[in-house]
Amino acid sequence: MHELFTVHQFPASGNHADLPAEVRDQVRALAFKGHSQLGADIIDAFPNIGLIANYGVGYDTIDVAHATSKGIAVTNTPDVLTNDVADLAVGMLISLSRGIVGASEWVLSGKWANTGAYPLQRTLSETTIGIAGLGRIGQAIGKRLHGFDADLHYFARSEKETPGWTWHNDLVSLAKQSDILIVAVSGGPETKQIISAEVISALGADGLLVNISRGSTMDEEALIKALQSNQLRGAALDVFNNEPNVDARFLALDSVLLQPHQSSGTVETRKKMGALQRDNLSAFFADKPLLTPVS
Amino acid sequence: MHELFTVHQFPASGNHADLPAEVRDQVRALAFKGHSQLGADIIDAFPNIGLIANYGVGYDTIDVAHATSKGIAVTNTPDVLTNDVADLAVGMLISLSRGIVGASEWVLSGKWANTGAYPLQRTLSETTIGIAGLGRIGQAIGKRLHGFDADLHYFARSEKETPGWTWHNDLVSLAKQSDILIVAVSGGPETKQIISAEVISALGADGLLVNISRGSTMDEEALIKALQSNQLRGAALDVFNNEPNVDARFLALDSVLLQPHQSSGTVETRKKMGALQRDNLSAFFADKPLLTPVS
Repeated sequence: MHELFTVHQFPASGNHADLPAEVRDQVRALAFKGHSQLGADIIDAFPNIGLIANYGVGYDTIDVAHATSKGIAVTNTPDVLTNDVADLAVGMLISLSRGIVGASEWVLSGKWANTGAYPLQRTLSETTIGIAGLGRIGQAIGKRLHGFDADLHYFARSEKETPGWTWHNDLVSLAKQSDILIVAVSGGPETKQIISAEVISALGADGLLVNISRGSTMDEEALIKALQSNQLRGAALDVFNNEPNVDARFLALDSVLLQPHQSSGTVETRKKMGALQRDNLSAFFADKPLLTPVS
Repeated sequence: MHELFTVHQFPASGNHADLPAEVRDQVRALAFKGHSQLGADIIDAFPNIGLIANYGVGYDTIDVAHATSKGIAVTNTPDVLTNDVADLAVGMLISLSRGIVGASEWVLSGKWANTGAYPLQRTLSETTIGIAGLGRIGQAIGKRLHGFDADLHYFARSEKETPGWTWHNDLVSLAKQSDILIVAVSGGPETKQIISAEVISALGADGLLVNISRGSTMDEEALIKALQSNQLRGAALDVFNNEPNVDARFLALDSVLLQPHQSSGTVETRKKMGALQRDNLSAFFADKPLLTPVS
């Protein structure tokens, strides 16, 4: 980054006002990373920016409407992370259903040698798997699950071209039909708590929930209550409200698999995400078309 | 079982001689479960048996040659467990490559909240995955991995009809070509330590190994040395020599994912395995064709 551009680091305090106004005036683009809010206040504090280049596919914390209204473009890093996110979703699903983390502990603690076989888990075969959201990542998850012996259903605003997967235009209908629900919708106001108490209840006491989208898509209170009262068999979560401060009630549950928002967290993919972010910045400064504008 | 047949329990001591000779003389079939040896000594101690009905697909601990020479049939429980074993193999592969067990611990221990992001792991995308053994289980693993963005190669005695997977008639050649090697050959004398020091070395320092076959297929000494000296990136193992007493050196390694031989360990599949074992016994006693004879 430093070889290509003159870089001013955002203040470690997290407060843009700690960057002198004369520096902020010089800044022409923001390179953004992380899951904190990038709202109108920050955007307005940089009066001469023409681009916000996000590192990541989700840009729900960026006030895109405000940026757009001021003629500021926003780019993200789609595609390059799709495979990793889909891989982790499938890995989390199998790990949850087959108790891989507990089984590892069973061996390491000596229980296998000293007390006998690991408790039986539950099969994935002949289950119905629902995917909420069939964008790039949802499609990649479906493509992977196609090789498993499962019936695939999905929720999307419109029916998509798929190899025999069943469309639902309603999340409760999808959850009712599904043994397992994988959440792959985008974050943002439109999908806030879209996985509601009603959806979780429709999934049922034998259901599993996997979330690799955003914590905001989940009614966490309803989820925690369902898990605590065994109204849901289990949940595998890579994203949370208020992360990295995971609700302590999740930590006390045996029926969850918790991951630290690592769905795109591989050496290879993070390099590609960084390169795409830089390429968008370079295009902007060279007055060329942006590679991956969000709108 | 007790409703269908007169059942004599094998002695808890594990020693067949603890069952009185007059009882052993009455026994006409052995219903076998587990991974201990069922050799010529035990077979000969039951002079009137016509069937050994195994619970499980692998029958490497049963002396089938000796049974056959005495006109004793052997049955196993194939097919009904294929999907579960393949599911776990893929789950172990993703868990190992993406560090799912360590990531879970990262959240539970509070490290995510207190020290920051989980260390970057490694992608599965654009890797070459080799499958050693393309029987029922190997094929089911390949079918699942087909939806992932990976190049598939396999080792088998003869070339199989596959959707574009590359055949190797030599394990070292397969390992050289592969980033990840999944072992799905049958157990028994023919495959003893087939995953040799040479195969492990050919896989290379960046390689991953997944074993869901039998501990006997692996040169465990060579594997442990390769892992200890970082000549292999990691291994996910569901089976071991001398299980459930896992070699303590495995327990000390960070680069392994250990599972307690749970590949068919689901409620649903174990029911089906039991039913198939009973159906073979019923067929035998009704003088009907056996459902799943091994030879």
